[in-house]
Amino acid sequence: MVVVLEKGVTPREKEAVRAFLTDRGFQVREVAGEEETILGAVGSGQVDHREVEMQPGVARVVPITKPYKLASREFKKADSVFSVGPVKIGGNRLVVIAGPCAVESREQILECADIVASAGGVMLRGGAFKPRTSPYSFQGLGEEGLRYMKEAGERYGMPVITEIVAPHQVEIMRDYVDVFQIGARNMQNFELLKVLGAEGRPVMLKRGLSATIEEWLMAAEYLLAHGAEDIILCERGIRTFETYTRNSLDISSIPVVKKLSHLPVFVDPSHATGLRDQVIPVGLAGIVAGADGLIVEVHPDPPRAASDGPQTLYPEQFEKLLRDIEVLSPVVEREVA
Amino acid sequence: MVVVLEKGVTPREKEAVRAFLTDRGFQVREVAGEEETILGAVGSGQVDHREVEMQPGVARVVPITKPYKLASREFKKADSVFSVGPVKIGGNRLVVIAGPCAVESREQILECADIVASAGGVMLRGGAFKPRTSPYSFQGLGEEGLRYMKEAGERYGMPVITEIVAPHQVEIMRDYVDVFQIGARNMQNFELLKVLGAEGRPVMLKRGLSATIEEWLMAAEYLLAHGAEDIILCERGIRTFETYTRNSLDISSIPVVKKLSHLPVFVDPSHATGLRDQVIPVGLAGIVAGADGLIVEVHPDPPRAASDGPQTLYPEQFEKLLRDIEVLSPVVEREVA
Amino acid sequence: MVVVLEKGVTPREKEAVRAFLTDRGFQVREVAGEEETILGAVGSGQVDHREVEMQPGVARVVPITKPYKLASREFKKADSVFSVGPVKIGGNRLVVIAGPCAVESREQILECADIVASAGGVMLRGGAFKPRTSPYSFQGLGEEGLRYMKEAGERYGMPVITEIVAPHQVEIMRDYVDVFQIGARNMQNFELLKVLGAEGRPVMLKRGLSATIEEWLMAAEYLLAHGAEDIILCERGIRTFETYTRNSLDISSIPVVKKLSHLPVFVDPSHATGLRDQVIPVGLAGIVAGADGLIVEVHPDPPRAASDGPQTLYPEQFEKLLRDIEVLSPVVEREVA
Amino acid sequence: MVVVLEKGVTPREKEAVRAFLTDRGFQVREVAGEEETILGAVGSGQVDHREVEMQPGVARVVPITKPYKLASREFKKADSVFSVGPVKIGGNRLVVIAGPCAVESREQILECADIVASAGGVMLRGGAFKPRTSPYSFQGLGEEGLRYMKEAGERYGMPVITEIVAPHQVEIMRDYVDVFQIGARNMQNFELLKVLGAEGRPVMLKRGLSATIEEWLMAAEYLLAHGAEDIILCERGIRTFETYTRNSLDISSIPVVKKLSHLPVFVDPSHATGLRDQVIPVGLAGIVAGADGLIVEVHPDPPRAASDGPQTLYPEQFEKLLRDIEVLSPVVEREVA
Repeated sequence: MVVVLEKGVTPREKEAVRAFLTDRGFQVREVAGEEETILGAVGSGQVDHREVEMQPGVARVVPITKPYKLASREFKKADSVFSVGPVKIGGNRLVVIAGPCAVESREQILECADIVASAGGVMLRGGAFKPRTSPYSFQGLGEEGLRYMKEAGERYGMPVITEIVAPHQVEIMRDYVDVFQIGARNMQNFELLKVLGAEGRPVMLKRGLSATIEEWLMAAEYLLAHGAEDIILCERGIRTFETYTRNSLDISSIPVVKKLSHLPVFVDPSHATGLRDQVIPVGLAGIVAGADGLIVEVHPDPPRAASDGPQTLYPEQFEKLLRDIEVLSPVVEREVA
Repeated sequence: MVVVLEKGVTPREKEAVRAFLTDRGFQVREVAGEEETILGAVGSGQVDHREVEMQPGVARVVPITKPYKLASREFKKADSVFSVGPVKIGGNRLVVIAGPCAVESREQILECADIVASAGGVMLRGGAFKPRTSPYSFQGLGEEGLRYMKEAGERYGMPVITEIVAPHQVEIMRDYVDVFQIGARNMQNFELLKVLGAEGRPVMLKRGLSATIEEWLMAAEYLLAHGAEDIILCERGIRTFETYTRNSLDISSIPVVKKLSHLPVFVDPSHATGLRDQVIPVGLAGIVAGADGLIVEVHPDPPRAASDGPQTLYPEQFEKLLRDIEVLSPVVEREVA
Repeated sequence: MVVVLEKGVTPREKEAVRAFLTDRGFQVREVAGEEETILGAVGSGQVDHREVEMQPGVARVVPITKPYKLASREFKKADSVFSVGPVKIGGNRLVVIAGPCAVESREQILECADIVASAGGVMLRGGAFKPRTSPYSFQGLGEEGLRYMKEAGERYGMPVITEIVAPHQVEIMRDYVDVFQIGARNMQNFELLKVLGAEGRPVMLKRGLSATIEEWLMAAEYLLAHGAEDIILCERGIRTFETYTRNSLDISSIPVVKKLSHLPVFVDPSHATGLRDQVIPVGLAGIVAGADGLIVEVHPDPPRAASDGPQTLYPEQFEKLLRDIEVLSPVVEREVA
Repeated sequence: MVVVLEKGVTPREKEAVRAFLTDRGFQVREVAGEEETILGAVGSGQVDHREVEMQPGVARVVPITKPYKLASREFKKADSVFSVGPVKIGGNRLVVIAGPCAVESREQILECADIVASAGGVMLRGGAFKPRTSPYSFQGLGEEGLRYMKEAGERYGMPVITEIVAPHQVEIMRDYVDVFQIGARNMQNFELLKVLGAEGRPVMLKRGLSATIEEWLMAAEYLLAHGAEDIILCERGIRTFETYTRNSLDISSIPVVKKLSHLPVFVDPSHATGLRDQVIPVGLAGIVAGADGLIVEVHPDPPRAASDGPQTLYPEQFEKLLRDIEVLSPVVEREVA
């Protein structure tokens, strides 16, 4: 921690700040210039920085250690690479996960799986327990949906990923799911993070609508600290003042997170934009910005989809997306999985 | 729903849009001007507006019904007023809820309760299960903390309010808690909303960091639709680009929500600002803007508090806050409870 | 500046960073702990912090000096207090400035001045050169409007304030205007700031829609550095994701700016909310949060106003606002001017 | 305009709203459903929507005409394509504009021009009048800088673009500049827009930090309404809560603006990110999202640049960027100019 002192700080105040810090386990060294004086406080002390900031004579406090460790590049220099069944996540592979917003029926998810696999997708997504902003909307098929999904995944050789919305669902979902997805609204549902961390299975952690990159990595830290090893971060747009699109994909977050963390980063252009027409340009943008893969919504008949139809690709659009990714991949020195 | 057609819309496209809508249960009427043509679609039809927006010839779609009903002023004209033990919430009373961020020990919560009650507070707050952004921070005393809190509340004749962070905690907490608090990070934890709605006890619903007023009222709608009757909305600051304060209290949300909804609205100046010095000015601002009460953090020795010390008031500051509210109350035609 | 080094920094990298800094005029001292090492760089050196951040072995750079000086509390401990004609700004006075959005005619501005003065307002506002988001909207009466305004101000003994939108207008406006207003959209129109600074007359500087508090104070610094002495800061709402209100008044900015700077701070509840019904609660909130005054829009017949009618108070509402401020003033230890 | 009436609206209120609207030149038609009633108001009437919203019985008002006309796709279906000297903007060409943040000397700008032209850039950028947030920072070389820039452009056959910060500068700049640039902070400097519109030369209009897409297009409308024909829109990042990057490039704005308007759209990844390492990934992302070109900062020795060094590319990075764009261009069906 660095403590910047006020210009007019008195010797007595300075001593009091120093004592306050050593009292809490810090070693303190002074750096005095013509214009400013700072105290560098290092060591294993613990204190809320805002409390130091309120001591007389203190102008400002600057934390210097990152709050996350296990998720940081400093902890692990090399990119995390792991396998989910036959699919390799991270490293030099570009992975496309796709499927409908919600599992609607056995036929629908089988048809979706066929579309995904035929075009070159390698993992199947689909919601069984849907977090809906309205209590009056379709809430998903539940366990029945999970069963259909597993069947579809197995038939087409694809692992399945689906969203979990409450800790107690782990037990029901365990038998059906290869990757647990934590939705944006639950990114800081710490009870869920603890339970999923302990479960040890791969987790896709979506960025919260108003989560800073640091908070996002702290949520990953929760999972890692409780036992998880294989985590996929997923940028899906943040909330800004612009309302034309549902959210604003924070394209810079991709190179930033790749620098700060060893964890793979995906992009969800469907939720980021909310509009089918923008899914391809924004998804491709994510790839060239350095993402390790995409997760997108596709449906045989989007206008008839039970939810999120407007942001769901037609099968032909999905095929085009995959072909475009193939063309772009050399620029980012990757291969399509 | 209002469907604005493009200027160059063809008769064939217009017919197709009309058919699309009637097919989905709407009655459609056309309003044509010199510059623009709109279709008004009313009735009990159901469709995702974005899907209509993508039909050829459609420029824009405008929803006209509010997504929430039970929470709206239209559903209930008069202010909701209800009692929690001896405390009347809503109506012409100004209510101050206070206590420490976290219950730390039996002595601490008893001392806090004494401070709160002596100064004129009428309900006791305190956290037993703490949602912390770092997995390495103090996570609360759990059930032990609840027990101490209940004892403190009973001794000083104050109902108690505490945060719940997972659905399964309802059973443990039921015996100790008068009002359940849903924190900002869980405002859209729909599983938690369903369970608490069914529980039927009063709930304080904090606004999410990036929740629009409409989403906040939709979360209240979840509670109401699942059985809750007594809900307190609580504005606690939203996330903006300004980082000097922890969050930015959306002061206008108070008159806005009072207009849109019959539910009482509180303000939490402690979390909104994150800094003790600002709690009083911002809290008083909330009162004159029309809030029904405040929830604030107070502690006998804030610098030694286990969490959130910097935003916690000293006992003398809390007393001053209550005296100031007393003076302001006639301006808003209220009495301090 | 504080330079936080990476954990794995090599001695050679550390030396290079040190050389880089001393080469640019800094004195450098090292503070080494178990977990982290920092370099404190003080003195009169100059470098873009981001450049240091990109040196190998550097984890992060933290600036420690505030970029503004003349506007800071450190430069001037006591509140700035100054007079504009008979009106004292700052100190223990609460000042209400009011008038129409735009000067529409001689009769209208005279009638407005009468309303303002009768109710207790002490300065007259009104726009002659209007910055409008649409090129097709009413752009103001120009110099004719200024003439009417001056006449109205003189008749009722009130100084006048009006917005300036381009540097060359200073010459025309100089003879009519007591306080120049810089609108939110021009807060970083540096050419305008330079010219107005040199003019030496009082300036009200509105906060930009997306300006941080630091950027706002830097804009004030421009005025001060170019010669201005009497500056009124004016909070008028920032842009956030919430769209129900036109902008979101950042209520916390008031105590924050009063702490960081000696300059008086006003609140403009009319532009912050955009809706007449919210002007009174939000304006009063500004006062109890510590503002030195308000600037509000009032018109004899708001629905017929040439611009901004919906956010303009009726005369009776304005009178009520003044009466309420009178009641509140003891809480903030002020008197209504 | 669509006027949504309240559920409990009385016949008398409904009549009053209807009269209010017809009185202001609208034709009004009613659309009544079971749950809601709306009034469609079309024609050439003029009123502030918020004023209608405040009439008794009105729940909400929805504008249906876009406020901009000349900038819209409806006004002009085909993409705007125009030439600046030998450079074709828009259509199937990808254009790269590059140069230093500021012109520092004759040698420097000549060297920059050489780097730009050699690598495949076709237009030269450079600042002569710099808008700086601090009054104490380097403010540019002024007319001297313009002269050097023109010389450099002519020697390498490249048109030049530079920023204008005040209306009166048009006269000095006219002889040196091919394209005027309006910076983000001046996007709503309406006096500047009027003067530049009348000048008739090509203009690059950067998006304001907190400007919605609609406001950005309205600023373009100002230019067009005052006579400009050749406008380049430039996305350069918006302000959000995320502070890791200087701004957040709104990647979705590119496909959105291409849909709403016929004007070409460029991306400025240097200002959007503020960090050299992110310029390439974010710039490429802009291209695949559909941008017509990029404007980037490059310098022979970025760490010694007079301003914005940290976001300025090294010559080798700039060459790599151009090569990557070459590879990507087929995906977006374009050719590099």
